[in-house]
Amino acid sequence: MNAIIEEGPTLADHLRTALEHGEIDQLSELIDAHPAQDIAQALGELPRQHWHALFERLNHERTAEIYAHLPTEHQTVLLEQLDPAEATRLIGELSYDDAAAVLEELEDDHVEAILEALPDDDQQVLTSLLAYPEESAGRIMTPEFATVRPEWTVAEALDHLREHSEIAETVNTIFAVSPEGQLLGWVRLKELLLSRPSLTVGSRIHTDIVSVEAHEDQEEAARRISHYDLDVLPVVDERGVILGIITVDDVLDVIREETTEDFHRMAAVGDLTLSLRDASMRLLYRKRVGWLLILVLVNILSGTAIAFFEASIEAVVALVFFLPMVIATGGNAGAQASTLIVRALATGDVQTRDWLRLGAKEVSVATGLGLAMAASIWLGGNWLGNLEVANAVAIAMFLVVVFGSLFGMTLPFVLTRLRLDPATASAPLITSVVDVLGIIIYFGVATAILQLN
Amino acid sequence: MNAIIEEGPTLADHLRTALEHGEIDQLSELIDAHPAQDIAQALGELPRQHWHALFERLNHERTAEIYAHLPTEHQTVLLEQLDPAEATRLIGELSYDDAAAVLEELEDDHVEAILEALPDDDQQVLTSLLAYPEESAGRIMTPEFATVRPEWTVAEALDHLREHSEIAETVNTIFAVSPEGQLLGWVRLKELLLSRPSLTVGSRIHTDIVSVEAHEDQEEAARRISHYDLDVLPVVDERGVILGIITVDDVLDVIREETTEDFHRMAAVGDLTLSLRDASMRLLYRKRVGWLLILVLVNILSGTAIAFFEASIEAVVALVFFLPMVIATGGNAGAQASTLIVRALATGDVQTRDWLRLGAKEVSVATGLGLAMAASIWLGGNWLGNLEVANAVAIAMFLVVVFGSLFGMTLPFVLTRLRLDPATASAPLITSVVDVLGIIIYFGVATAILQLN
Repeated sequence: MNAIIEEGPTLADHLRTALEHGEIDQLSELIDAHPAQDIAQALGELPRQHWHALFERLNHERTAEIYAHLPTEHQTVLLEQLDPAEATRLIGELSYDDAAAVLEELEDDHVEAILEALPDDDQQVLTSLLAYPEESAGRIMTPEFATVRPEWTVAEALDHLREHSEIAETVNTIFAVSPEGQLLGWVRLKELLLSRPSLTVGSRIHTDIVSVEAHEDQEEAARRISHYDLDVLPVVDERGVILGIITVDDVLDVIREETTEDFHRMAAVGDLTLSLRDASMRLLYRKRVGWLLILVLVNILSGTAIAFFEASIEAVVALVFFLPMVIATGGNAGAQASTLIVRALATGDVQTRDWLRLGAKEVSVATGLGLAMAASIWLGGNWLGNLEVANAVAIAMFLVVVFGSLFGMTLPFVLTRLRLDPATASAPLITSVVDVLGIIIYFGVATAILQLN
Repeated sequence: MNAIIEEGPTLADHLRTALEHGEIDQLSELIDAHPAQDIAQALGELPRQHWHALFERLNHERTAEIYAHLPTEHQTVLLEQLDPAEATRLIGELSYDDAAAVLEELEDDHVEAILEALPDDDQQVLTSLLAYPEESAGRIMTPEFATVRPEWTVAEALDHLREHSEIAETVNTIFAVSPEGQLLGWVRLKELLLSRPSLTVGSRIHTDIVSVEAHEDQEEAARRISHYDLDVLPVVDERGVILGIITVDDVLDVIREETTEDFHRMAAVGDLTLSLRDASMRLLYRKRVGWLLILVLVNILSGTAIAFFEASIEAVVALVFFLPMVIATGGNAGAQASTLIVRALATGDVQTRDWLRLGAKEVSVATGLGLAMAASIWLGGNWLGNLEVANAVAIAMFLVVVFGSLFGMTLPFVLTRLRLDPATASAPLITSVVDVLGIIIYFGVATAILQLN
């Protein structure tokens, strides 16, 4: 069962061998013996012609299940390669939210061809899901769910659920609605099972409803599910009519994608919708070169600042020795501060209105860090035998660390205010900006203390 | 309902006012009108004496529910302040996994006092949970779950579940066990509801069981739930006897904590178990100063390298102008590469054995980036009017970017091999190391091309 952490020949190796030798029986055996998720993951490690072969040659009842667990980008590529009938069959086997995710990546005429080949009701549901904006709650909801009416008895409700539970994705939490479909409350299935059958549903429902509007952001849906510990979140329109449900396993994917986006932004990498494994070299190049070029422009200022203090450098060469330490430490302290804030903002641990309180805390922490770093570099400077240089370098270190930390903690808040992603306050950006200001502070202090002019 | 995104006076402000003026009625009203999660979050924003007041003065049926949603560190602090009877009452209201999480933070004699005051069965369960290692699957499992036997009929099973559903945390997925408690299979509640009552449970169960051993890491439990799209993961002992269950909402917290740890490590911040909001200034200082000091040691090498090339600097001062650009760009490219790898390793998108394939890709991408950056700096150098300097600087830029990228992508794999966390390959660490080697490459190339010696 633990194919993920298996050593030795992997499932992917076995599949490759079976596919290359055309051993269909062996292939069937492998597929029977492993969960669909593991087969799907192993396929991702094989070249594309192999998975094409698997889906085309193998008439196995579980191919649709395996297909459902492939990453969306693989599903799309495969769909473009298969003949239209097979493509339609696979789409028909997916849950609506998964099918919508695949279709949104395809060319318009391809989507239309597939939709037309599907049964009318599937076609209708998928068209309505695809009408919601990308990244909206509506896009990831499933419209397959069972509702009950408050005036029903518990016995009637349970009969109804029994009849409809085959199509409903989850029946752990049941929503009660008005005749118009407006959300009135919710009840756990186990509460219904425990109740006297003659009671009305209305007497058992909870009315503290947490919902999300279909046009709201997926991230907001994820935040509510996580914050309110929900297993299912109802999606409603502006009148409160229930349109679908989002389950906690749907938002696991949303959370993972958003977090990866934050990680990449924090390292000055552009948004990568594909996984690193599948991203082409061209794509990776494009996502990285932009920020590198922008940051070079900032670095030009560093060069200019150094050139400006040329006379100081020539007068006291020891100054150059300590320069990298001082500016790098300032940049590192800034990167620490910005990362702490960016992550705390992302988890909702702090809000923008906490700026002042956290700022006051950061001043204290940065002062402490600045003093510690100044003391360590002062000892080093003294050891090299020049008390005046040691003093100048220590004062500069203190100022650069405090300044770098405050800049690092402030930038994410400023970006949020400007309605930009706070994660844009990447370590490379902070380091580059603190470099420029660090050089100016460093040589400014040194020039003043050592009276170089 | 959307207290999280509310503008204007917040729920915390309202609570503060009511608490400061001792308006118990108003407090009750506020508590009735908001979900327990929102009250708990708002309390976190108030000073500690306020929440103490709330839990002590208010005899409200929902105080235990609010307590259950406080962060663990707040629960612990509060428990130490309240009188023993009230403390025991609150612990008794928590689910077992939450109660264990609170107790593990308390002093041993305090834990014993609380355990002894609890009913015998609670005491026994909590003692056994606390015996599992920290961060293990056993610690976050809940031992409250219902099982069925394969030889029962569907009708018998449903009756049994109806009787026991009050104590079971989830009944969406039911596990079938042997008389000794060994896990034999699982079945969805809705499958039972749909089945003919006279069928045996054994005829309806699925046998592709995914489980986790109680001593395995929580992260492994989270990975399996996420990978296999489970809503509940059974926890077993070494003989396959089911001990408890972990639900998907439990692992949401695990995933969030692990991700936060990665973010902090990537910025050279030590592990912070408290939230940024609650961390004291001393703690924040301690978690940041260590890496800053270690990195200064690396920066000393940079200073030494610059000092070594003093003669080159004096000969061609223009070289100093381009130095920050070249070494910073190398560090930035390295930080990009390491972050892409660290995140992909964390999500399971790539494994350590993919090293070679990703390395080959990185060589191409880094070559492209190196050429682009070299071209841009060559134009700059030429514009400043010195073709030889432009050539030297461009060649150095190319080499430093390629070297920095390869170092950045290799380090996380090396750390994994050494059984260290790949996230230790932080942007500050990569930048500092690439600085040293960048300076050597830069002046080495310049000295050779400009024939400075």
